[in-house]
Amino acid sequence: MITPPAIPAIVLVRPQMGENIGAAARAMWNFGLDHMRIVAPRDGWPNPAAVAMASGAGRLLDEARLCPDLPAALEDCDYVYATTARDRDLTKPVFAPEAAMADATARITSGQRVAVLFGPERAGLENEDIARANAIISVPVNPDFPSLNLAQCVLLMGYEWQRQTSEVTLQSTDMAGTDWASGGEIEHLAKHYEERMEEAGFFFPDHKAASMKVNLRNMWSRLPLTRADVQMLHGMMRQMVRWKERD
Amino acid sequence: MITPPAIPAIVLVRPQMGENIGAAARAMWNFGLDHMRIVAPRDGWPNPAAVAMASGAGRLLDEARLCPDLPAALEDCDYVYATTARDRDLTKPVFAPEAAMADATARITSGQRVAVLFGPERAGLENEDIARANAIISVPVNPDFPSLNLAQCVLLMGYEWQRQTSEVTLQSTDMAGTDWASGGEIEHLAKHYEERMEEAGFFFPDHKAASMKVNLRNMWSRLPLTRADVQMLHGMMRQMVRWKERD
Repeated sequence: MITPPAIPAIVLVRPQMGENIGAAARAMWNFGLDHMRIVAPRDGWPNPAAVAMASGAGRLLDEARLCPDLPAALEDCDYVYATTARDRDLTKPVFAPEAAMADATARITSGQRVAVLFGPERAGLENEDIARANAIISVPVNPDFPSLNLAQCVLLMGYEWQRQTSEVTLQSTDMAGTDWASGGEIEHLAKHYEERMEEAGFFFPDHKAASMKVNLRNMWSRLPLTRADVQMLHGMMRQMVRWKERD
Repeated sequence: MITPPAIPAIVLVRPQMGENIGAAARAMWNFGLDHMRIVAPRDGWPNPAAVAMASGAGRLLDEARLCPDLPAALEDCDYVYATTARDRDLTKPVFAPEAAMADATARITSGQRVAVLFGPERAGLENEDIARANAIISVPVNPDFPSLNLAQCVLLMGYEWQRQTSEVTLQSTDMAGTDWASGGEIEHLAKHYEERMEEAGFFFPDHKAASMKVNLRNMWSRLPLTRADVQMLHGMMRQMVRWKERD
């Protein structure tokens, strides 16, 4: 019996379609979750339709723990979250997915075993199932169209789990490692364009020339140009001059 | 032409399976996004398979804007994000989904029109597509199994959008008030320069021409150009041509 302590167990409660079990496995593995438990699947187990759908994530199905009922699936779990669409009248802490996975991360770090329950496609978890959970995870979907399917709900939990645990989440990297042009290179580019455009008679009429030059300089100095951009811009201008002189 | 200003447009670029278009519509509507644009769908439009899959979200397909190519789809957009799985060597800001939707919220609050691009199921967006975007959104999936499908990728963006906007405080950006060039104006500028530089023989040697064009496009779409910058750049190019033709 494989129970990786460092990740939550994903527990599919009485899943119906094999395709959905396979899709859930894929969704899990997309975010590095590979510990699945399956409670009383409607169409028995193993399920060829699940295997067909899981493709690259088939290993998760091979290693999934088949359980006759929910208590058996939760036997070794210290803290259990139940995912629900509609609100329940049960008195329990309700987490948004992000808060739930933050809480799960903290518990797992402190050595607890955590599970997340997902109900059958049609009706979702029964109140008896939810009664066995410590907390509820409610996904804030559009009230006019709360139609998340099983694999999508698993996907969102996996995504939030991954966000909690990956140290290296890229946050708006402002193009780190980019080879920006130096002030001197921008100055040189500005001069090159100003001189050529002067020859070309661009700064006209005379009384506007000064402000046109200022605007052009201002643009070059404002734009975040890379060294490659500057090379290309120089090359374009040189080519225009060659073109002119060719005939 | 329907363009709700308050939400990002979801642009499906050359989608293949109608089922996936329908599933994307469902994923959007789950999180309150209902502005879809469809670029050159493989199997034509309307698509019965898409309608069948969309069910409750069918309205999005009825109202979706069908576009012959990407420039047409982005014509009225001020800022465009391209979703990619694998890394690209294009110089662009890269956002995680959360940061991207935070950025999009700020831009929309300041009156900009924002779009998010999703590529074809098989291969994703081409570099020419990405060159037309201002930034990249990269979903941090399991490198051993980065198998998100189209609707799942749309779902994650919708989820992050919903999280951003449900947080009532929408901070506006310092760029508010600036008269930025629209996507259509940038596209027109890029075409103008590409055509003239083609005539001038800039894209040489032939085997490098394609990548040179992509780099040039990528620069235009990446630079924060104002409407005045664009006018000036057009004027400079026109003047170079006049100069050439004068003698």
